[in-house]
Amino acid sequence: MRKYGVIGLGQVGATVAYTLVQQGTVDELVLIDKNEALATAQKLDLDDASARLSSTTKIILNDYSALADAEVLIVASGNIKAIDMTSSKGRFGEYDSNQAIVRDIAPKIVASGFKGILIDIMNPCDVMTDYLQRMTGFPRNRVFGTGTFLDTARMQKYVGQAVGTNGKNVAGYVYGEHGNSQFVAWSTVSVNGQSIHDFKDLDLKALEEDARQGAFAVMAGKHYTNFAIATCGVRLAEAVSADAQLTCPVSAYDPAFGTYVGMPAVIGKNGIEALIHLDLTADEREQLAASAQFIKSKVDVLPQPAPSK
Amino acid sequence: MRKYGVIGLGQVGATVAYTLVQQGTVDELVLIDKNEALATAQKLDLDDASARLSSTTKIILNDYSALADAEVLIVASGNIKAIDMTSSKGRFGEYDSNQAIVRDIAPKIVASGFKGILIDIMNPCDVMTDYLQRMTGFPRNRVFGTGTFLDTARMQKYVGQAVGTNGKNVAGYVYGEHGNSQFVAWSTVSVNGQSIHDFKDLDLKALEEDARQGAFAVMAGKHYTNFAIATCGVRLAEAVSADAQLTCPVSAYDPAFGTYVGMPAVIGKNGIEALIHLDLTADEREQLAASAQFIKSKVDVLPQPAPSK
Amino acid sequence: MRKYGVIGLGQVGATVAYTLVQQGTVDELVLIDKNEALATAQKLDLDDASARLSSTTKIILNDYSALADAEVLIVASGNIKAIDMTSSKGRFGEYDSNQAIVRDIAPKIVASGFKGILIDIMNPCDVMTDYLQRMTGFPRNRVFGTGTFLDTARMQKYVGQAVGTNGKNVAGYVYGEHGNSQFVAWSTVSVNGQSIHDFKDLDLKALEEDARQGAFAVMAGKHYTNFAIATCGVRLAEAVSADAQLTCPVSAYDPAFGTYVGMPAVIGKNGIEALIHLDLTADEREQLAASAQFIKSKVDVLPQPAPSK
Amino acid sequence: MRKYGVIGLGQVGATVAYTLVQQGTVDELVLIDKNEALATAQKLDLDDASARLSSTTKIILNDYSALADAEVLIVASGNIKAIDMTSSKGRFGEYDSNQAIVRDIAPKIVASGFKGILIDIMNPCDVMTDYLQRMTGFPRNRVFGTGTFLDTARMQKYVGQAVGTNGKNVAGYVYGEHGNSQFVAWSTVSVNGQSIHDFKDLDLKALEEDARQGAFAVMAGKHYTNFAIATCGVRLAEAVSADAQLTCPVSAYDPAFGTYVGMPAVIGKNGIEALIHLDLTADEREQLAASAQFIKSKVDVLPQPAPSK
Repeated sequence: MRKYGVIGLGQVGATVAYTLVQQGTVDELVLIDKNEALATAQKLDLDDASARLSSTTKIILNDYSALADAEVLIVASGNIKAIDMTSSKGRFGEYDSNQAIVRDIAPKIVASGFKGILIDIMNPCDVMTDYLQRMTGFPRNRVFGTGTFLDTARMQKYVGQAVGTNGKNVAGYVYGEHGNSQFVAWSTVSVNGQSIHDFKDLDLKALEEDARQGAFAVMAGKHYTNFAIATCGVRLAEAVSADAQLTCPVSAYDPAFGTYVGMPAVIGKNGIEALIHLDLTADEREQLAASAQFIKSKVDVLPQPAPSK
Repeated sequence: MRKYGVIGLGQVGATVAYTLVQQGTVDELVLIDKNEALATAQKLDLDDASARLSSTTKIILNDYSALADAEVLIVASGNIKAIDMTSSKGRFGEYDSNQAIVRDIAPKIVASGFKGILIDIMNPCDVMTDYLQRMTGFPRNRVFGTGTFLDTARMQKYVGQAVGTNGKNVAGYVYGEHGNSQFVAWSTVSVNGQSIHDFKDLDLKALEEDARQGAFAVMAGKHYTNFAIATCGVRLAEAVSADAQLTCPVSAYDPAFGTYVGMPAVIGKNGIEALIHLDLTADEREQLAASAQFIKSKVDVLPQPAPSK
Repeated sequence: MRKYGVIGLGQVGATVAYTLVQQGTVDELVLIDKNEALATAQKLDLDDASARLSSTTKIILNDYSALADAEVLIVASGNIKAIDMTSSKGRFGEYDSNQAIVRDIAPKIVASGFKGILIDIMNPCDVMTDYLQRMTGFPRNRVFGTGTFLDTARMQKYVGQAVGTNGKNVAGYVYGEHGNSQFVAWSTVSVNGQSIHDFKDLDLKALEEDARQGAFAVMAGKHYTNFAIATCGVRLAEAVSADAQLTCPVSAYDPAFGTYVGMPAVIGKNGIEALIHLDLTADEREQLAASAQFIKSKVDVLPQPAPSK
Repeated sequence: MRKYGVIGLGQVGATVAYTLVQQGTVDELVLIDKNEALATAQKLDLDDASARLSSTTKIILNDYSALADAEVLIVASGNIKAIDMTSSKGRFGEYDSNQAIVRDIAPKIVASGFKGILIDIMNPCDVMTDYLQRMTGFPRNRVFGTGTFLDTARMQKYVGQAVGTNGKNVAGYVYGEHGNSQFVAWSTVSVNGQSIHDFKDLDLKALEEDARQGAFAVMAGKHYTNFAIATCGVRLAEAVSADAQLTCPVSAYDPAFGTYVGMPAVIGKNGIEALIHLDLTADEREQLAASAQFIKSKVDVLPQPAPSK
């Protein structure tokens, strides 16, 4: 039996739930949100679809204890309205409110006896992933964030458009923060196996900025993003269930930096199975270190868990 | 090549689009919305998911002419905030604004050369479906509405819960308006092939009211419904593409009433292939006639198309 | 994690495995066949597809102990060449060889610690399902056969063709043996909610014979059947995983007959959750009893398990 | 509407058809085989599954004229028993019989008015793809073969196993003949973006031989291969329908060699949209030329089409 949980049923969490129900990915789905009326509404809407779907999914509402035997828990909490797309604050608009959410839900997740893999989507993603790990005390491999998995997809899209091909033909990774300090590690990027540097007349700076600003381009029109990020969360959860050992750029704990930051990592039933250390350029290594340092600085100043006795 | 169009990219239309892209149902998808920024945002969000999906879908934005060779056009326009769930007005809160939308889009659809099947989700569904047919002048079989397809799914869910079984084991239909005058034709309802009347201690009145109020139960928590209705729209579109000859309760034109109203009909490549006339009770026949009459009265008072010369 | 096992990797078992891998239904799949070379070949062929699939499935070969934590075990053993389509023997051509297979595999399944649901496809299906239950000693609800699930699909197809509609619009059940003594319980059959008896000029005898001979029509051209039966097996397994409480005609143990026989039953995580007793006609009840008696007579003469001490 | 055709309904063609029906990929499917009984049996078996599938697929039997408006035609003819896995002949065991099939079906395909993309699976694949193009006279971009698409998947699998990762993390291509003269272009192969040459202690010769012999490893146990090759054929067809512009190693016409040979090419609605010319090593270029020359020599000696007047 496949069983996942989702905490936070706004646009992102609800779309994750819908995708799982629509695909018949899971047999049981635990949906949790402080807004009881919202949670009930999402469950009703999903249940209403049941007679029109070939699969059946049991939805359990607002019951942390039901997470005890869940394989994957996706955290999609937050208040999208706090994100300020017009200022440099960006995703840190949710910094204050989401750190409080972490302190609220972490002990409940621990108390539930949850033994699976926690995938964080909550923003600022790397900071909150790190904070969730600290506050739950879960092994670091069992907690990771969607990080630059979506930014990388956006980079693939924009590079694909620039070169005139499908973004699926583009390989390579966006590293660093799922936020302003992210960067495209161009040394890793290739199109159909050819280094991006072989393609002339590409404005790499502009393409990098397109990927970085991708979320805000969407938010400019709909005030949130949900389809692509929910798809990313679901793909990562599926990789965990299948123990796929699939390499994806996610927010993973790197001991070299003492925090979570976006980089390629192998996803399997243990969450992060391994980090993939590619041969980055000196400049890329520097950018990554700077991005990680920024993330760490934002986590270190948060109220830390009481030392275990 | 499968090609659909969607007009109206609010929660419902966007979820229809997401479902089609996620499933790889169509090869091309034409998305249309007066709110250019919203339309652009939905396309960007869907395109961002592409590198994480195994299928590829080409999205064409705000180009009516691209509908010329589309198989199916789903109309999901509307202003959900106009729906008044607290008064008896219900879905007629959108009556004024949506009739204007019909007059706006109908000539554009006609001018596009669209030759496919038009599926209306816009509310009040039966009225707007009828009005769309009148204003486009399309053959009546080529226009239908989701009607009571979702209400029937809700009835199946509630009856299933009452009897303690999966709603998929429940057969039968909700007839009439996708609105307050709808009713469950209990003479058609069975569970695992057994008449609903063989199940004792069921409060059929309450179950019917649950189905009728299902949308409002969802809206109470999330202020709109999208997952179940989008799923219904997609299933009907798939039935058209596959020429499935599948019997579904939809809003279909019944010459006996001179308007569109919810009843079982056969869906295929011609849209409505046939109406299914079941042996309803006298009371049910009366309710259906009353519901149809109410719908017709609401369409007849709208500005009619100029007589063709 | 979803984990199934398949014993018997001929055309049917292999197609079951392929369907599960193609759909990404399971995370782990245990494949077992005495023919080691065949088993290895099926695994290699399925693994070769992996880079072309979005999902990943771990295939475990010929390891009974891996069944310990499997949810579903599908038994598809047999020697199709033994089925004699030209004589009245039919599926009983496999009677001698398959009963030996049951005695071989039953103790191995028990020893594996398998605690899931056993779905038998092996022919003659009802006899071998009963025998598998007796020889494993598993609770009767945890063992069932595909029985008339496929015959019912064939009946739906042929009735649909006769009436000029999609077989999915046809409800009702084939009862009895997955073999010559099966029959269509016409009292349960309806098209779009209308009794089959309302459709004039149908030759019900001929339609029943079409359904009964459906397998042989396929075998006449390809010497085995696999696509439809594998699809049936997979659907039932999915209903178990999802605890779908879905009513399907399968070979279930009916205490009234003291054996397994095809009839509608509710499928869920406990296998057979309940039998559905419809109001059959006297003639249908008689046919069902005769069919069950025939099945029982064929199981009773087989070597029985040693009495437990 | 999506419409494909399949010629040749042995294990491969039938599995292609089953995959398309199971997934609901197409709305209409034209199945063609000289063995009428076999064709009828495959259709019956697929139709029998219909009531257990959520999608509906119309199957048209042995009607070349129905190919007129098909998007994709997959040719999977052949006599697998002619393949000699024990001698160096390999897939050329089918050379004599399949060239006759090409001469038989090519004029029928042309006469049907088929305007879509022809994907050849028939062996020896490159030779027969070239011969099909010559005998149909179709533009070269509209005809291509599965070529090394499957061999590449096998290489990915074996490299993944050697390195201890999912083959999906392996990039790169097998070039040349879908046969003995194929080779892994190791200069194109990377794992998670790292050159294969950075992985020490890999026996590349052995891995290349594993990929080359992959089909025979499967045939040793089941006497044919179907699951992986059918999956490959379906993925390529889907890329055509979606105009995906997806880069895949296939058997494409390269004017430099005057024949079809396996190399990365861009697949879209026009079939082969472009060849991808990677910076191969001198040795790889030589192997490719030799492989192409071998293929060409085998096509050139076949009876050629009459010169058009």
